[in-house]
Amino acid sequence: MIVYGDIQSGNCYKIKLLTSLLGIEHQWVDVDILNDETQTKSFLEKNPVAKIPVLELDDGRCLSESNAILNYLANGSDLLPDDRFQYAKVQQWQFFEQYSHEPYIAVARFIAKYLGLPDSRREEYQSKQEGGHKALTVMEQQLNTSPFLTGEAITTADISLYGYTHVAHEGGFDLSAYPAVQGWLEQIRSLPGYVAMS
Amino acid sequence: MIVYGDIQSGNCYKIKLLTSLLGIEHQWVDVDILNDETQTKSFLEKNPVAKIPVLELDDGRCLSESNAILNYLANGSDLLPDDRFQYAKVQQWQFFEQYSHEPYIAVARFIAKYLGLPDSRREEYQSKQEGGHKALTVMEQQLNTSPFLTGEAITTADISLYGYTHVAHEGGFDLSAYPAVQGWLEQIRSLPGYVAMS
Repeated sequence: MIVYGDIQSGNCYKIKLLTSLLGIEHQWVDVDILNDETQTKSFLEKNPVAKIPVLELDDGRCLSESNAILNYLANGSDLLPDDRFQYAKVQQWQFFEQYSHEPYIAVARFIAKYLGLPDSRREEYQSKQEGGHKALTVMEQQLNTSPFLTGEAITTADISLYGYTHVAHEGGFDLSAYPAVQGWLEQIRSLPGYVAMS
Repeated sequence: MIVYGDIQSGNCYKIKLLTSLLGIEHQWVDVDILNDETQTKSFLEKNPVAKIPVLELDDGRCLSESNAILNYLANGSDLLPDDRFQYAKVQQWQFFEQYSHEPYIAVARFIAKYLGLPDSRREEYQSKQEGGHKALTVMEQQLNTSPFLTGEAITTADISLYGYTHVAHEGGFDLSAYPAVQGWLEQIRSLPGYVAMS
């Protein structure tokens, strides 16, 4: 199978991390969003939404949206609970990630790290701080009651949230006020098979 | 079980529609977001993210995020595929909904319908139009090749996207340029057990 992505994107890195933890062989094809490589005809056939990552199976079928890819790849492994309620909890955290976490933390990081925090985007960058801290506060609260987001065991929900949380400082978020989040990051960083973003 | 929600919210209506299609008995408790009813201590214990809908099971466990609730409730029914790839496709469309559809179409509708399109929000309202049309174009493209979003059969992905698409006109989106989307809306509207938003 082929993964199309940019390892510096948290959404793509999630896939890299999961495949490394589970030992899933794949080919990685770099795609440069700043160079409009998601806008080519051949890429849009794989994902009309023009976003990375995309997973292409050996039979040519494609899957997009990072968290859907994670759950597809983790199916049958310890990282995805069989229990119906627990699997729903995994999805709950993943939808939280895409709606209440990524649009703040990942976008602030993109403006600072990819674009170099230009004056034209500074107001938008500032406007992302409150929502990002709100998301981190929700995570801190949960991680004060359980070692991982959905309970005692690590799941794809943790991989999803790890993606941008571990580089939140690049978006201006100081994690020192979130000790449970910091401990959780360290737990994930010490897993066998862990691979860093770069 | 109890559903906490506001039937005028597309995210909450999704749950109403699914439970009606599947004949799932539940108690509905109205929550008024404009009256800060998601900010009370007792509500925040159910969902620290302070959002509706929330599903509360008979044993007191709570689940939030509309699409996670849909998939939990549809488990074992015809609306959720067993096949691993097909289930991942359902999730792909649901993440698309939360990231690339809802933040444009639902927010534009909120500004127009709930807030009465005040001058202070008009620029934001306008800024939502392009992204909303992009999402509708992606749906139109898919619905030109298959009757439902993931293929031949209706799934929770269709319920998710139906939520705000069928009231997109209230956010200023003219659907006449999207005939396949219109046909798909009509298909869903004619399902046995269909219930309207209000």
